[in-house]
Amino acid sequence: MKLATLNNGSRDGRLLLVSRDLTRALDAGHIAATLQLAIENWWSVEPELQALYRELNAGRAEGTFAFDPAAVMAPLPRAYQWCDGSAFLNHGALMQKAFHLDPIDGADTTPLMYQGAGDDFLGGRDDIALPSESQGIDFEGEFVVLVDEVPLGCSAEQAGDHIKLILQINDVSLRALAPREMKTGFGFLQAKPSSSFAAVAVTPDELGDAWRDGRVHLPLRVEWNGKWFGNPNGGAMNFSFPQLIAHAALTRRLGPGTLIGSGTVSNADRRVGSACIAELRAIEMIEHGAPQTGFMRFGDRVRMEVLDSDGQSLFGGIDQRVVAAAG
Amino acid sequence: MKLATLNNGSRDGRLLLVSRDLTRALDAGHIAATLQLAIENWWSVEPELQALYRELNAGRAEGTFAFDPAAVMAPLPRAYQWCDGSAFLNHGALMQKAFHLDPIDGADTTPLMYQGAGDDFLGGRDDIALPSESQGIDFEGEFVVLVDEVPLGCSAEQAGDHIKLILQINDVSLRALAPREMKTGFGFLQAKPSSSFAAVAVTPDELGDAWRDGRVHLPLRVEWNGKWFGNPNGGAMNFSFPQLIAHAALTRRLGPGTLIGSGTVSNADRRVGSACIAELRAIEMIEHGAPQTGFMRFGDRVRMEVLDSDGQSLFGGIDQRVVAAAG
Repeated sequence: MKLATLNNGSRDGRLLLVSRDLTRALDAGHIAATLQLAIENWWSVEPELQALYRELNAGRAEGTFAFDPAAVMAPLPRAYQWCDGSAFLNHGALMQKAFHLDPIDGADTTPLMYQGAGDDFLGGRDDIALPSESQGIDFEGEFVVLVDEVPLGCSAEQAGDHIKLILQINDVSLRALAPREMKTGFGFLQAKPSSSFAAVAVTPDELGDAWRDGRVHLPLRVEWNGKWFGNPNGGAMNFSFPQLIAHAALTRRLGPGTLIGSGTVSNADRRVGSACIAELRAIEMIEHGAPQTGFMRFGDRVRMEVLDSDGQSLFGGIDQRVVAAAG
Repeated sequence: MKLATLNNGSRDGRLLLVSRDLTRALDAGHIAATLQLAIENWWSVEPELQALYRELNAGRAEGTFAFDPAAVMAPLPRAYQWCDGSAFLNHGALMQKAFHLDPIDGADTTPLMYQGAGDDFLGGRDDIALPSESQGIDFEGEFVVLVDEVPLGCSAEQAGDHIKLILQINDVSLRALAPREMKTGFGFLQAKPSSSFAAVAVTPDELGDAWRDGRVHLPLRVEWNGKWFGNPNGGAMNFSFPQLIAHAALTRRLGPGTLIGSGTVSNADRRVGSACIAELRAIEMIEHGAPQTGFMRFGDRVRMEVLDSDGQSLFGGIDQRVVAAAG
């Protein structure tokens, strides 16, 4: 099942069902007005949504319209919780080596995760408005899961059952601001402006065999200004999504609609490139002694795409520009 | 104006007006069903709420009932954003001295702030259920402001106008988990379980002269198991709330209903005690070479109270126990 959120002028939009091939959409607001309401009542609304989704894909649903990825918001335009892991240890290892950082104690047994801001997500076609190019504007391609209510102390074994939807994001990062925030120990705040989400959230069954071991075993293709930048595979996560959820729920329950992210997708095979500029720069520092690639400039465009087994866009992709914030 | 949220079984409760003396309450859900909806439409709902509040205080409102602080949730039971500062530098200085930490570069000019979890706040009379006493259970008494939408790049001069409500919280902290999370640079996650909120949120005018310079110039009285623990004054903030808001909004707008916290209230005068156990332990380490006070045990109770100029409870206070989480 594929779900999107129509931009109807409200803060939370209105729930849409989108056909598997992303060509047709259908209002689903009579079943649940918003994705947040759907996830809060998933056990009751999911069968009804699935039934309508079958009709939509079979071409039997009434009231469908052409699906426009530019007419939707992030599937969940704002979330009560957004926790982002750093589950690809290859990324951290490269950053450590490039910047001569001390290894983080226990990083291979306890996931790294930061609390992010969920109040103002962008759609995957929205411009990213930022105050200054000097802040080191970077993209980060990631996979994310959306969970229903997760009890305190939920184990990794139980956590998988709470994963209801899978999403694709661009976790925008401001690299010039990150080192100071990391050094304080308080974590990222100014360094992590609003993230952007691909058009549709999908149920795990949409991935078929590519969803296994709590991981998305698909390449994430990243283009920067129309040029290939990388296509690392999500299957290389050192911690699975259920492990990340269990980490977040160790000392508290997670409200329904919590988003848990993988961190930037990163593979040891350097031929597949990277999903963020910082990682390429780290590789350049290791290989050449200094970074050779700059960060994003205003007007730059980033495109991120995940294809399903039929070669079709799975999440509707991300295709957006960075622009100067007004004022 | 004083606002609370009735626990009606829903996740967001129902908006109540509460009389200045906290004796009577009145349903305000016909003006705005929830506090989140009120803050999103503050310019239009505030005059109507204020008019009804005047009737309530004058004893002229119909349909009032006795106010019970145990029957309400946190004023905002869940928030799309919760950012907590550490605006009392005295606290940081004591922690640094006790633990022989390096000073944080620029900590006197740039506020420390972490992104917290807003998905599951507790009411001020709710039990705090936690998995283990060994995690170093601590309370933290703080003041918090609730803002409407704040534009990206908002200056401290402009930020004050976005403060609509002031609240009082217990920012529960797990001290045994914090050092590792700080050391990773990713910040607090497991170390910061759900925070608890005093019964009512109040408009700044309720504080009279005690609200000035963007600070709450009132003592926060903390009792642990019925014994005085401290009464530090909120006026000693080294950064004002408008400065904290501007810090959070440097690289993105803040959604309406964002909460911004002061960090644990802390004064240089040691005779006024502390608002968290970690700070008392730091003082003990400095004075005696080792901490002498343990953290909270299951069954322990913490009480936090702020009195107005008439000696009445301003926010309805916090009075809650720490208990073992089920299972």
